[in-house]
Amino acid sequence: MTDLSITQIDLPSGFIDLGMGDPAFELLPLEMIHQSAATHFSTGDPSFLQYGAEQGDRYFRGSLANFLTKSYDLPVDSDQLFVTTGASATLDLICTSFTQPGDVIFVEEPSYFLALRIFKDHGLRAIAIPMDEDGLSLKVLDEKLTEFNPKFVYTIPTFQNPSGVTLTPARRDHLIARAQRHNFLIVADEVYHFLAYALVPPRAFATYTAQVEQIISVNSFSKILAPGLRLGWVQAHENIIKRLTGSGLLESGGGVTPFTSALLRNVIESGGLAANIANLRQEYAARRDALEAALGTYLPMAEYQVPPGGFFFWVRLPGIDTATLRLKAQEFNVGIRQGGLFSSNAGLSNHIRLGFCFYDSGTLREGVKRLRDCLEKNF
Amino acid sequence: MTDLSITQIDLPSGFIDLGMGDPAFELLPLEMIHQSAATHFSTGDPSFLQYGAEQGDRYFRGSLANFLTKSYDLPVDSDQLFVTTGASATLDLICTSFTQPGDVIFVEEPSYFLALRIFKDHGLRAIAIPMDEDGLSLKVLDEKLTEFNPKFVYTIPTFQNPSGVTLTPARRDHLIARAQRHNFLIVADEVYHFLAYALVPPRAFATYTAQVEQIISVNSFSKILAPGLRLGWVQAHENIIKRLTGSGLLESGGGVTPFTSALLRNVIESGGLAANIANLRQEYAARRDALEAALGTYLPMAEYQVPPGGFFFWVRLPGIDTATLRLKAQEFNVGIRQGGLFSSNAGLSNHIRLGFCFYDSGTLREGVKRLRDCLEKNF
Repeated sequence: MTDLSITQIDLPSGFIDLGMGDPAFELLPLEMIHQSAATHFSTGDPSFLQYGAEQGDRYFRGSLANFLTKSYDLPVDSDQLFVTTGASATLDLICTSFTQPGDVIFVEEPSYFLALRIFKDHGLRAIAIPMDEDGLSLKVLDEKLTEFNPKFVYTIPTFQNPSGVTLTPARRDHLIARAQRHNFLIVADEVYHFLAYALVPPRAFATYTAQVEQIISVNSFSKILAPGLRLGWVQAHENIIKRLTGSGLLESGGGVTPFTSALLRNVIESGGLAANIANLRQEYAARRDALEAALGTYLPMAEYQVPPGGFFFWVRLPGIDTATLRLKAQEFNVGIRQGGLFSSNAGLSNHIRLGFCFYDSGTLREGVKRLRDCLEKNF
Repeated sequence: MTDLSITQIDLPSGFIDLGMGDPAFELLPLEMIHQSAATHFSTGDPSFLQYGAEQGDRYFRGSLANFLTKSYDLPVDSDQLFVTTGASATLDLICTSFTQPGDVIFVEEPSYFLALRIFKDHGLRAIAIPMDEDGLSLKVLDEKLTEFNPKFVYTIPTFQNPSGVTLTPARRDHLIARAQRHNFLIVADEVYHFLAYALVPPRAFATYTAQVEQIISVNSFSKILAPGLRLGWVQAHENIIKRLTGSGLLESGGGVTPFTSALLRNVIESGGLAANIANLRQEYAARRDALEAALGTYLPMAEYQVPPGGFFFWVRLPGIDTATLRLKAQEFNVGIRQGGLFSSNAGLSNHIRLGFCFYDSGTLREGVKRLRDCLEKNF
């Protein structure tokens, strides 16, 4: 039993929104979170109700560091972790802490459209760097670096939203070298890193931060546990952490998640988080396969790579204006995200983003069938 | 049993920091919050773990509206409420949503020093408007309005931090009229409104927001329940609410407190919040009286008004440079906040802020005695 009215999801009855990036309700680990919270309440210590340490609860950071050390198979120091209220709030804080309106930043083309909104709210000028199947084009990056001094490059390096593309290890190394030479930050949004179905992801940007001061790895529990928690973390060099936690916002309110991080600590320490990720990988891989099969059956003209991880298919429909398709599709009770949303220069008009995590396999299939019906009737 | 290491409080052993604005550990209602959380978990509905509605959980807003309607004795519409992660994050979001670096704002002199930090992080130019015993000087405000077009006036209208002063009803009306005429916002930080000990506070700015689009009432559960929750609210005209919840930050991450607000709803609905406030008023009034008595005994030269609510005494020590006093006082194991912190123009050097909520009466008395010893030895 769920209640959409308290969520961000606003769907007419019977509508299938294939554009969504929300996790499945049935995969939200309510009981695991309940037990973790009960464990903390039973200690009887009210300290987590006080103004919290700016960098976050040190026990939580310690547990998270252990989890990340195992996951990355490289040592993670809890002093390099800062507990946040999620990736969106972190991007907002990075903009406040490191940029001024009018500053240039580089973003991938395509990129996550709501990150682009956050950058716009801060008056930043986003320059699009195209991607190919290996990720961000370094050739174009180098050209643009002769013209601009970006404050940061925003990348979603692994299982990118929306393209599904993963930046290759060689390009990661080259991008880091460029950041050091030209002194810009790499804001690496690594929220899909742990959701791999068919590819061992390259070494995360997070794991370079002990040596490289130009990297801010932004991560979140939204995709691997539950978005309603509004809980995430940054991994970065201690100088970057100091800058973020020394902001007026953090000094005034203290740490941003004392309550939530204390209640969730046991989810990590009990092994629940690792088990949840294993379960999500299995479930989401099956849903991905179902969406792929439906595309093969109903939309043979669609051009795409099967995403080896993450949440999305990035599909090109040759000759179709997908902004128009989105409107027409509503009549068929099916939703998509049109490619133009993800563009910083009014491009990508033949692409759509389809998510495969929210719906079960049968519903995904029915959604693609409706999209086929819409295309047959209108295009 | 408490654990300071996870809190923002960093005190050497035996040190009494009279400057603090943190609530008392022993008054944090752990069991009430535990029961409220357990009540919500027992519903079995995982919807609060999904991306939340941008404006906040509608049931929580409904319960809060009922509480506020009773407290203000004026109708509060839940559509005018936006659930936030507390006052600091709200001030940050207001700056992002309504200002550009270089914009002028007006602040009270003195004002809350960490709010001033947040405004500085956003590149705002804060012009100081002095206060008298009736609050913000409208005479100076009018003079400054001939010179500047402020984006907003930041006021703590009731039991101000640090001065303890309350803006009179007549001045509230006049300030609102100025805001309408000159089209600036009033950002009213009303977090102490409910902590009245000896004065029925004037009508809150919050209660004008249905009619007046120029008011944003910022409020928080930090002072009336527990700061570690990072939970607060805005009351404002629906057009203002739309602007705040339509930001990229909110669109991307959804509502900022789905988890916390769901777990805390029963604290409001059960009457626990109202009972907690009644208890705090009684406890804090007794501590205020103890600090007043200690000042009378040990610091007869001190000039101050007894605060009728809130957290602080604002004390003038004629001829004493309080920045120097702060350093010397550390040798006597006692802390204060020097007046200069609260100034936007390097003034207030003879004032100190003393908080009376964190410590019990005996400790407050001992702290003031140490301050006396320091003054006798050094000044």
